Amino acid sequence: MASVPETVLSAMRATNDRFNKEVVQNHNLNELDSVYTADARILPPGAEMIQGRDAIKAFWQQAIQSMGVKSAQLTTVDAEMLGDGVFEIGRADLMLNDGQTLGIKYVVRWKQEQGDWKWHVDIWNPNQ
Amino acid sequence: MASVPETVLSAMRATNDRFNKEVVQNHNLNELDSVYTADARILPPGAEMIQGRDAIKAFWQQAIQSMGVKSAQLTTVDAEMLGDGVFEIGRADLMLNDGQTLGIKYVVRWKQEQGDWKWHVDIWNPNQ
Repeated sequence: MASVPETVLSAMRATNDRFNKEVVQNHNLNELDSVYTADARILPPGAEMIQGRDAIKAFWQQAIQSMGVKSAQLTTVDAEMLGDGVFEIGRADLMLNDGQTLGIKYVVRWKQEQGDWKWHVDIWNPNQ
Repeated sequence: MASVPETVLSAMRATNDRFNKEVVQNHNLNELDSVYTADARILPPGAEMIQGRDAIKAFWQQAIQSMGVKSAQLTTVDAEMLGDGVFEIGRADLMLNDGQTLGIKYVVRWKQEQGDWKWHVDIWNPNQ
């Protein structure tokens, strides 16, 4: 298993922080352009696979509102370099408006796009 | 994106078939040794991540019984070579004892172990 250079891990943390602070906390959905690759795919629980940024933006806009998500803290559990990408296992702690916390686990296949490390395939499910 | 050689795709189909025919249909849980790598991890909906074959066997034994799964047809939607592995997006059609069919989507990070292609990381969630 090839370990991920610290420069890449740091770029990944920056992307994850943008998702939490810009997209979830500030409701700036256009920041998803710097989180997902142009042809990214997401595989959300309870829905079919969704491809492309416009469809992904529509999904998150609806999901963040309907779930009442206040913040999403993302933590890398394991990451390995795989070819031109990074394969990451992570956990997300979602804080909801009603005070509840939801534990989520995910797998992201990362890909570099114009210098930035972004989510290229993103699948998750709840711990409970 | 590096395409997956036909020999590897064929080995993957054989592994998927073993899961369906031996594990799900014949309840031969020990066949999971030839499906999952020794240090595989699964990320099931509604549970924490599970690591290692013994724990994975216990999970599937319980899950197949409690859900009443009669068969699990696995279909590769997309696969790419990534480093020493294959990154696969797939769909599973579960036939239940009560006649219902469940659609599942999954991501598997494949790894070669002693010549066989096996599931090294396995995460899934329901389409509905």
